[in-house]
Amino acid sequence: MIKVAIAGARGKMGIAAVHTVMKRNGLELVAALDYKEVGATLGELELFPSDYQVPIFTSFEELVAQTKPDVLIDLTSPQSVYEHTKQALLHKVRPVIGTTGFTDEQLDELTQLAQEQKVGCIIAPNFALGAVLMMKFAKEAAKYFDDVEIIEMHHDKKLDAPSGTGVKTAQMIAEVRQVKVQGHPDEHETIAGSRGGDFDGMRIHSVRLPGLVAHQQVLFGGEGQLLTIRHDSLNRESFMNGIVFCVETVVGIEHLVYGLENIL
Amino acid sequence: MIKVAIAGARGKMGIAAVHTVMKRNGLELVAALDYKEVGATLGELELFPSDYQVPIFTSFEELVAQTKPDVLIDLTSPQSVYEHTKQALLHKVRPVIGTTGFTDEQLDELTQLAQEQKVGCIIAPNFALGAVLMMKFAKEAAKYFDDVEIIEMHHDKKLDAPSGTGVKTAQMIAEVRQVKVQGHPDEHETIAGSRGGDFDGMRIHSVRLPGLVAHQQVLFGGEGQLLTIRHDSLNRESFMNGIVFCVETVVGIEHLVYGLENIL
Amino acid sequence: MIKVAIAGARGKMGIAAVHTVMKRNGLELVAALDYKEVGATLGELELFPSDYQVPIFTSFEELVAQTKPDVLIDLTSPQSVYEHTKQALLHKVRPVIGTTGFTDEQLDELTQLAQEQKVGCIIAPNFALGAVLMMKFAKEAAKYFDDVEIIEMHHDKKLDAPSGTGVKTAQMIAEVRQVKVQGHPDEHETIAGSRGGDFDGMRIHSVRLPGLVAHQQVLFGGEGQLLTIRHDSLNRESFMNGIVFCVETVVGIEHLVYGLENIL
Amino acid sequence: MIKVAIAGARGKMGIAAVHTVMKRNGLELVAALDYKEVGATLGELELFPSDYQVPIFTSFEELVAQTKPDVLIDLTSPQSVYEHTKQALLHKVRPVIGTTGFTDEQLDELTQLAQEQKVGCIIAPNFALGAVLMMKFAKEAAKYFDDVEIIEMHHDKKLDAPSGTGVKTAQMIAEVRQVKVQGHPDEHETIAGSRGGDFDGMRIHSVRLPGLVAHQQVLFGGEGQLLTIRHDSLNRESFMNGIVFCVETVVGIEHLVYGLENIL
Repeated sequence: MIKVAIAGARGKMGIAAVHTVMKRNGLELVAALDYKEVGATLGELELFPSDYQVPIFTSFEELVAQTKPDVLIDLTSPQSVYEHTKQALLHKVRPVIGTTGFTDEQLDELTQLAQEQKVGCIIAPNFALGAVLMMKFAKEAAKYFDDVEIIEMHHDKKLDAPSGTGVKTAQMIAEVRQVKVQGHPDEHETIAGSRGGDFDGMRIHSVRLPGLVAHQQVLFGGEGQLLTIRHDSLNRESFMNGIVFCVETVVGIEHLVYGLENIL
Repeated sequence: MIKVAIAGARGKMGIAAVHTVMKRNGLELVAALDYKEVGATLGELELFPSDYQVPIFTSFEELVAQTKPDVLIDLTSPQSVYEHTKQALLHKVRPVIGTTGFTDEQLDELTQLAQEQKVGCIIAPNFALGAVLMMKFAKEAAKYFDDVEIIEMHHDKKLDAPSGTGVKTAQMIAEVRQVKVQGHPDEHETIAGSRGGDFDGMRIHSVRLPGLVAHQQVLFGGEGQLLTIRHDSLNRESFMNGIVFCVETVVGIEHLVYGLENIL
Repeated sequence: MIKVAIAGARGKMGIAAVHTVMKRNGLELVAALDYKEVGATLGELELFPSDYQVPIFTSFEELVAQTKPDVLIDLTSPQSVYEHTKQALLHKVRPVIGTTGFTDEQLDELTQLAQEQKVGCIIAPNFALGAVLMMKFAKEAAKYFDDVEIIEMHHDKKLDAPSGTGVKTAQMIAEVRQVKVQGHPDEHETIAGSRGGDFDGMRIHSVRLPGLVAHQQVLFGGEGQLLTIRHDSLNRESFMNGIVFCVETVVGIEHLVYGLENIL
Repeated sequence: MIKVAIAGARGKMGIAAVHTVMKRNGLELVAALDYKEVGATLGELELFPSDYQVPIFTSFEELVAQTKPDVLIDLTSPQSVYEHTKQALLHKVRPVIGTTGFTDEQLDELTQLAQEQKVGCIIAPNFALGAVLMMKFAKEAAKYFDDVEIIEMHHDKKLDAPSGTGVKTAQMIAEVRQVKVQGHPDEHETIAGSRGGDFDGMRIHSVRLPGLVAHQQVLFGGEGQLLTIRHDSLNRESFMNGIVFCVETVVGIEHLVYGLENIL
């Protein structure tokens, strides 16, 4: 039985994580960490069923002393998560972190601290196992197929194009792929932009439509064949099996891992 | 039984059309028209089986006098096809034409001539029934969904982007759709071109990869739903059922039709 | 401005419909019909914002007398909807109905009543415009392509296979398609069922997976080409633009229409 | 420069392989092996350009003595390929083999022989890199997603369902997946077979349509997400980059490898 504490239990991701840990065989939710007094237990809050008898602490030291968690899932803001992670490592509680907001210096420091303490720690910019597998497979396929294009599709409320996952995928492919300008050398656009965005010669296309959520396909083309890897993410439930995977994995390692692609 | 003559039988499309007409129940290939002496019958040519006893003519008048075809399928170059079409209409032979090379004046003249002669005539820039249906359905769907993006995908030897079919689809949609700038008003590209080419506010994305042939999907998005219409064209066989459809349709009409979308 | 009343405003679909009508330009929500006393206005209920000052009635006569709606959207159970529809037609209020539960006799009676009263009425077993367009397009494409297979994909909580939409699509295709046993005459399954369910010789495949919601693609194959029509439905928002379409359409007709495919 | 000999150069695959090796930088086609006298060089045959000055041998010993190839690509029938492979290993020529026809005893013997001789040997039931990657990725994804269905789609001349690749994929997934009956426990088919073929509780669906060639998608579903891996094979060119990969790989190993998935 792995004893779990959660910081940020009242946020959208946190609520889902609380339910997930409560229902998962082999996991026990022993405590919640909050920055202010909101009640004695999660069950007292309107957000949760009244039988969620999980104590809430505002002091991490007290939380550790009373509930001795194996793992801390931290879903709070970048501001607090760095301090939480350090404290957790010092108390030999293994952190599972979802933020992307660390500086390189912070990452270096945490990596070293985890190593000194021999405490596992997983920092995952993306908890969706399927999305991480897509990127990992794309990187592997790029060793055998030079020609690749990425089509990412999102709802039309999204501000930036391409998506973070789209760019991250291209970066991971670029690590193993020679820069190559794809398409016909003399190709020309009669409508500017129709060939998409250029990243080391591969093209990224960003579709935005109402009805879409978050989708991406990576297409590899070779003579006579096409290999496509696609991920569709419909809601934040897609992060939950990733969090469970991290909790169950972090208890078996003694160092810091950055990015799920390195443990899948 | 519909009696068919073919002009341009020795070209790639022509060869396929000859086989198609020979095998089709209800059609009889009675003559081929060639611009030079190549043999007495198709069966004498290396391109065809020796039992294709179809006479070859270099004079259209003689062809008509001896074989009395109902329909002329013309797969020759734009230079000759206009003259062939006029001659055919004058001889009350119904033309089925695959070129896009007519001027507006030529089209007007042929339209009037067909009407005067009360002879059916079909001019089809695209014989692939599936592609024409895709465009027709896209135009219809656009009445109910304002938000649409087009992804067309072709082999990486293609020079122009977007494809002719991609642009034609956008034009047909634009006939029934109010101009609307899609996506978030404040969206921005971190890689130029990633949002694709802009056509009246809808976006067109052109993918180019080896292994692809000719594919297009039209995506309509609305709250909570997505409607996608896709056509994949793998080889020129895709034109053959369109040609047969035109031959069987043209004998039942008495005017000129431009574009299969108007008779499907 | 079209004046709208809603019956069943407290159900899941009803709540969404209330919001939709409140926000839509050109529509005014003038009344709600409930079978029991729940409050004086929707704004008094916890389900809605307090500024939704829409009166609730338990008597349809009173509702009509006081608010004179043009249209009644009925999202109640099949038991009450038949009576509501009849009453509405008698009071010259145009019904927009989402149920599938009418008997043939009831449908005949309502059709005749609408005609006598010269009052528009729309009964839509499926309000998702995209799904209805998919079926309509599939029926049209089937005139030109004999070979078709349906792949419908749903979440793994679904009990029946194929889905209702899958069977309905096959029925609509069958109306225009000759019965044809597809595939190779000597084909054989090494794993029973792999070729899917047989409907007049076309095959239907039902995929069930967590993460899926409600999706269907209809694939038409011809020599050298493939035409695919696909609909993805992610949540009940997909029904709302269909309801709006019906409300705006029903005020312009004077008879009963069954099925959106007949007015799209 | 790797010196290559080809057995079976006059077959369809062989002709394509000859062209591929002739054009590839770093490879030199030094000999062809034939079972009968057909000419002195490939260039003498109608099948090849006259400048293909590659000598043809009917004796493997003579071929080796005169041209000293590093690699033998064998594309002949299962009957002869076993003998060729043994001979090649004994002569320290590395075999690259595309057949599936070996018995377990033959495979054991060849594996041992390769080990004794310290000669690389690759036997690949499927040379299409994309298809092998699809299967490999599917096996990896199955570690994280229990729920999977396979949709394989082929032309309607295919006799067996599911396809060999479909079954092989299911077998590879089954190696890492607990047997699990997917779908709702109480699900029922209103049309028999609609839920597809059952393989350890996962479902395989076989689509057959004209216009299709050889396609497969493997769908993994989890809460809120879907991961899809798809391969489209359009013609035998898809095997050529796999053959090149094998030739370039086999010179660097000293044992027998069965299946490209073990070296990708």
